[in-house]
Amino acid sequence: QHVIVCGYGTKGRSAIRSLIANGTPADKIVVVDPEPRAIDEANSVGLTGIVGDAGRTEVLRRASVERARAVIVAANRDDAAVMITLTVRQLNPSVPITTSVREEENANLLRQSGADTVITTSATSGRLLGLSTDSPRVVAVVEDLVTGGQGLDLHQRTVQASEVGLGPRALRDIVLSVTRGGRTLRFDDPLIGTLQPEDVLVVVKAHEPSRPNRPPTQPSPAQA
Amino acid sequence: QHVIVCGYGTKGRSAIRSLIANGTPADKIVVVDPEPRAIDEANSVGLTGIVGDAGRTEVLRRASVERARAVIVAANRDDAAVMITLTVRQLNPSVPITTSVREEENANLLRQSGADTVITTSATSGRLLGLSTDSPRVVAVVEDLVTGGQGLDLHQRTVQASEVGLGPRALRDIVLSVTRGGRTLRFDDPLIGTLQPEDVLVVVKAHEPSRPNRPPTQPSPAQA
Ligand SMILES: [Ca+2]
Ligand SMILES: [Ca+2]
Repeated sequence: QHVIVCGYGTKGRSAIRSLIANGTPADKIVVVDPEPRAIDEANSVGLTGIVGDAGRTEVLRRASVERARAVIVAANRDDAAVMITLTVRQLNPSVPITTSVREEENANLLRQSGADTVITTSATSGRLLGLSTDSPRVVAVVEDLVTGGQGLDLHQRTVQASEVGLGPRALRDIVLSVTRGGRTLRFDDPLIGTLQPEDVLVVVKAHEPSRPNRPPTQPSPAQA
Repeated sequence: QHVIVCGYGTKGRSAIRSLIANGTPADKIVVVDPEPRAIDEANSVGLTGIVGDAGRTEVLRRASVERARAVIVAANRDDAAVMITLTVRQLNPSVPITTSVREEENANLLRQSGADTVITTSATSGRLLGLSTDSPRVVAVVEDLVTGGQGLDLHQRTVQASEVGLGPRALRDIVLSVTRGGRTLRFDDPLIGTLQPEDVLVVVKAHEPSRPNRPPTQPSPAQA
């Protein structure tokens, strides 16, 4: 089963890096973009590229939208995002669709059009802009958290057998939230008690231990 | 001392909400936008509004850019962001400038123009798009973390006197990183040892404890 990414601009490429960093093989990603040069590039890095407008039924059929595991809409314009989302939803009533929009006022239109998750580009970066003034380190941490494969990563995963019965603070990973029976509890919620089988966690994990073999008292100048 | 926000679209408004949620009073925020209607709106919510192009020296002088504490550039177009950043930097060599750009290829141009922090709108939302497919809860957590004043918030703060000497996992807040002497260590770095005076932490805190007075065994149906 494949993931379809509509749009191979900055957003689409960044989405694909994120998919691959989180375990989706490149050959399970189908890219649709109207620009033949963009698709040449996608093909050259091992993705399956389709030239065409993802707002058209015939193009989405060529991408086997009926059998896709998920669809990501990374269009440059909000009107294009609406057309693509509507068309995908018409052809596949159950596939999860995530759509990005530039303007917050269009987010609800996208939900109406059938998107399950809507990411408002300007709102998220606006929040980061606001944080940057007094908390520049926070901005760096957020960018690290959402960039998979290095430093700190956010992960969603089910609880492991060895973790059942532990408190959320006893894990090696940092637990931020626990979803149990459709309800999401924050790390400090006393309702969590101890972890149960089938709990879904959102955790922060350090991608690889930093400097594992170096004694803590002798940092080398190169690392300063 | 005031913060200047250039652009009162979705990004600028969202940046301002974030500034206010993190403690900047509305009357210390000066908004510059070419649209008189946008500025009317800014004035009506207690901000100081200036109608004009923030890429022009005379307009930035009216905003007292020489004495600003920080400047946020939330323009809709990358070329406008460059003009504004260059002009701000020319008038005030030391003020921290954070600029958002749509396209990753322009991020370096903005740094060259004098921006201290550059937030790449499309790259960040692209990463979230990629995460949404397999980790939809992660996307919700990220949006919560960067939206101040509710749920989980990311904060940058110095270590408190009562925390000195503790391990980073012993705090009520969740510690993600420790900056000490200009060097940032991740939560799992053995170099952290115990917290030192003047350490700067990035923490996750729960904005208010959830349901503090409710016994954990009797959730009400309204909370399900
Ligand atoms: Ca990371
Ligand atoms: Ca929050």
